[in-house]
Amino acid sequence: METKENGPSKKVSNGGIDGPTNPMVTPLLNDLYQFTMAYAYWKAGKHQERAVFDLYFRRNPFGGEYTVFAGLEECIRFIANFTLAEEEIDFVRECLSSSCEDGFFDYLRGLDCSDVEVYAIPEGTVVFPKVPLMRVEGPVAVVQLLETPFVNLINYASLVSTNAARHRNVAGKSKTLLEFGLRRAQGPDGGVGASKYCYIGGFDATSNVAAGKLFGIPLRGTHSHAFVSSYMSLDEITDKSLRGKDGSSRCDDFVSLVQTWLNKIQLSNGVFGETNQSELAAFTSYALAFPDGFLALVDTYDVMRSGIPNFCAVALALSDLGYKAVGIRLDSGDLAYLSCEVRNFFRSIEKEFGVPEFGKLQITASNDLNEETLDALNKQGHEVDAFGIGTYLVTCYAQAALGVVFKLVEINNQPRIKLSEDVSKVSIPCKKRCYRLYGKEGYPLVDIMTGENEPSPKVGERILCRHPFQESKRAYVVPQRVEELLRCYWPGSTDIKKDTLPALRDIRERCINQLEQMRPDHMRRLNPTPYKVSVSAKLYDFIHFLWLNEAPVGELQ
Amino acid sequence: METKENGPSKKVSNGGIDGPTNPMVTPLLNDLYQFTMAYAYWKAGKHQERAVFDLYFRRNPFGGEYTVFAGLEECIRFIANFTLAEEEIDFVRECLSSSCEDGFFDYLRGLDCSDVEVYAIPEGTVVFPKVPLMRVEGPVAVVQLLETPFVNLINYASLVSTNAARHRNVAGKSKTLLEFGLRRAQGPDGGVGASKYCYIGGFDATSNVAAGKLFGIPLRGTHSHAFVSSYMSLDEITDKSLRGKDGSSRCDDFVSLVQTWLNKIQLSNGVFGETNQSELAAFTSYALAFPDGFLALVDTYDVMRSGIPNFCAVALALSDLGYKAVGIRLDSGDLAYLSCEVRNFFRSIEKEFGVPEFGKLQITASNDLNEETLDALNKQGHEVDAFGIGTYLVTCYAQAALGVVFKLVEINNQPRIKLSEDVSKVSIPCKKRCYRLYGKEGYPLVDIMTGENEPSPKVGERILCRHPFQESKRAYVVPQRVEELLRCYWPGSTDIKKDTLPALRDIRERCINQLEQMRPDHMRRLNPTPYKVSVSAKLYDFIHFLWLNEAPVGELQ
Repeated sequence: METKENGPSKKVSNGGIDGPTNPMVTPLLNDLYQFTMAYAYWKAGKHQERAVFDLYFRRNPFGGEYTVFAGLEECIRFIANFTLAEEEIDFVRECLSSSCEDGFFDYLRGLDCSDVEVYAIPEGTVVFPKVPLMRVEGPVAVVQLLETPFVNLINYASLVSTNAARHRNVAGKSKTLLEFGLRRAQGPDGGVGASKYCYIGGFDATSNVAAGKLFGIPLRGTHSHAFVSSYMSLDEITDKSLRGKDGSSRCDDFVSLVQTWLNKIQLSNGVFGETNQSELAAFTSYALAFPDGFLALVDTYDVMRSGIPNFCAVALALSDLGYKAVGIRLDSGDLAYLSCEVRNFFRSIEKEFGVPEFGKLQITASNDLNEETLDALNKQGHEVDAFGIGTYLVTCYAQAALGVVFKLVEINNQPRIKLSEDVSKVSIPCKKRCYRLYGKEGYPLVDIMTGENEPSPKVGERILCRHPFQESKRAYVVPQRVEELLRCYWPGSTDIKKDTLPALRDIRERCINQLEQMRPDHMRRLNPTPYKVSVSAKLYDFIHFLWLNEAPVGELQ
Repeated sequence: METKENGPSKKVSNGGIDGPTNPMVTPLLNDLYQFTMAYAYWKAGKHQERAVFDLYFRRNPFGGEYTVFAGLEECIRFIANFTLAEEEIDFVRECLSSSCEDGFFDYLRGLDCSDVEVYAIPEGTVVFPKVPLMRVEGPVAVVQLLETPFVNLINYASLVSTNAARHRNVAGKSKTLLEFGLRRAQGPDGGVGASKYCYIGGFDATSNVAAGKLFGIPLRGTHSHAFVSSYMSLDEITDKSLRGKDGSSRCDDFVSLVQTWLNKIQLSNGVFGETNQSELAAFTSYALAFPDGFLALVDTYDVMRSGIPNFCAVALALSDLGYKAVGIRLDSGDLAYLSCEVRNFFRSIEKEFGVPEFGKLQITASNDLNEETLDALNKQGHEVDAFGIGTYLVTCYAQAALGVVFKLVEINNQPRIKLSEDVSKVSIPCKKRCYRLYGKEGYPLVDIMTGENEPSPKVGERILCRHPFQESKRAYVVPQRVEELLRCYWPGSTDIKKDTLPALRDIRERCINQLEQMRPDHMRRLNPTPYKVSVSAKLYDFIHFLWLNEAPVGELQ
């Protein structure tokens, strides 16, 4: 109960780091028990005891063997700006017992993260279970207050980045992946987070304007079914003129030009039925608004009998004026079959009317896509260039949470272990260092955790890597490259370096590179090989010594 | 391209309604295509055309036959404060084509929802597929800009409220349900939303301090495993004194008192092994901080050999000083078995030491609970009083999205229909009225949609209710009570009434009452009976007339 609580508050320099993207991320975005514990620590005079917590997860999501680490930047922004406003302290007072002493609230008033150190694996790295993603050290009461916000900020971010990476893995490098999940995301911020972290995981663009503005992510979007059905007929189009792309020519009746083309297409392809006139009007109107970006949703009525002939008529009319249409979007039906039919139709138009590149117009597909449907499309064969993916991607339907935990591993220089009958839940004690060891072919071979003061693994030197809990699982490794995984992101009172927080684009690039350098059998969808995570021989022995010491030996008779 | 864009902006009165809870909910929280469409409408001079959109969902979630409607208040707050800031307009300009005309951005500058009307079912109502939850009418360009935010705000809110209601349904009325999901929620706002909407769905409290502050939801929380393992031994407790509850007495060595009780318990119950001393120190310390609110997490080492004797020793020592302990929390193991063992232990203590009510101390259980595990616990028999539920509840693991849609049903007084080869995706056209018809026993029998100008169903009068798409499914109903479902929540330019937005507590009460008044077979977990949703005979005929008119008749040869 000494030190800071009565003095003037010593404010930590936040190194010029702005607060979190979401203004709701304040110290009150916390489980109540972090505050009750903080009080209990304070009351016992224990609140300044130096504690080390590891943030990690226990299992890779989506039945895979890898995870993309994301959310770190928001955590660093949070601690850089960590402070409790007066009204927040008042609220905490209301929540706790009336018997709580005033001194505690004075303590809260002066609280910041100037005594906290955060070491972390860089955002966008491919990571594995049990290895700390973040190691947070500081006064136990303060670090406890970081648990819930950190776990919240990392959990979904890493999960959805991983999901995006898995979608990219199935779709292949050449396809364009668009995140369309805002409307189905779990709340407004779920939507914004999804856009950011899907981009990190390898998506190319989003439909979410707010995410575009906040993070500079490329935006995509055209029109919906409602736009199509809001039109009745071509009579609704009053301003029918369109200037040519080069600015010199001008077409006074673009509508007639479209109709002429439609007739030609129908004659040449033997389409006898009428196409839908609402749709034709909507496409024409949209092209008049965006002659340079004409991409039409073609499945409001019937793709091959109406949408595609209508689209082609408008695209060919645009072509006469020097504009190049972008393509079409399919949002229902058998996407493999339809995309091939559409591609054939485009090619026949190219041939018939001699319009170069018409056969290569972009085909975008959407409609409840996920990893499995992408895989199925690949197997069937398709002609889709771009996928718009929403619900299953952003809600992480296949695995709704990552299960990140935050465990005490040391306090007052004493290592601590959390035991459990379920061995996967036993924590790895001690303040640790973590390394990734690379083999001859450049692939990562194994991650290894050591005690803080052990010598680091050396290139070319044999080192024993042990499974943390299974005695028989161990192997000697001779690393060709050694990478220390945990880097300092928040050094406490010292000013942090300007380049501590990389740009989103760089995080995305790191992620893509990281995914590419993994051995392919870890990455495959079916029966992937688990990547090995190990501890040093010394740490192994220490874990098991502690375990025996802590486990209960009594018996209830 | 006329009316408002050049005049001074006519600002809508927002009836004193504050903006959304989440400051990220702005008009830019939108799919890009809403803006491209807005431009296309404007460019075509169509933007002021009056359109009616229905917001509804197609299937009940979680394999059930009911859904709780939630999220309405946030939607109303959003439109009441709908306006684009200058920098937002600048960003939209950057996102659209450079060929877009300036007049459009002037139009955006003056935009508000003064011409929009929103009719909705009250928040907290039990609702069913196809029936509009909201009917939004206004200038087509403006209403399109509401689609994505509305769907986003309703989707997760209704989903998680329904999930909470389902958990309550299994747990039973007498149990306390605590939402502990913040750390596993999909982002910060996912956590805050989960807390709010689980409360509406029938939960009693949350651990989320921010939600407590924002919405006045009761808060709960004690301590974590880390708190327990942060202690080494009783020697760490320096201030050992505790004043009695009545204020007159004082115990100078509470630690010794605890140890005395532990010895007594061990003798009387034949516990010979030592309990864990870290744990005993942590419990003692926590009790000194919160003598009036002592609730201990008892599974850090071993529930029956360590946690429970340690807890009882501290609780009995508190009892000597006039304090009543609250109870324990179990976070692992066989919760059914352990809760019964713990209850027996508590009862034996009550009997042995004559401490009244000790047998009734609260037992809270947590650890990856969901509907299924609650059901399994009920079948096995358990002694749990309160459940702390996190991951599966807030992430809606069993069904990650509700699939809310927003469909154009009328424009310029012309009804519109969206066709699809999948009949469940065909929309029900026309501006409609919706009624719930009640039977003799007070249960709702059927929901019926009619055209706007049809006479409303009358009590005691026979009315034909038809399945919207299946000709053979129809029935006559004689309602004993008729409830119109859609009420006016946003009348556009007129000031809205002060009581339009009920308090959260009232929404929650409505929800609980609504769930209770449903016929039990609709609510059961196994093979629930679908609740019937119908249309009037006149609307049925009209749907099928339109359908035939719109469906393509041509053929591709």
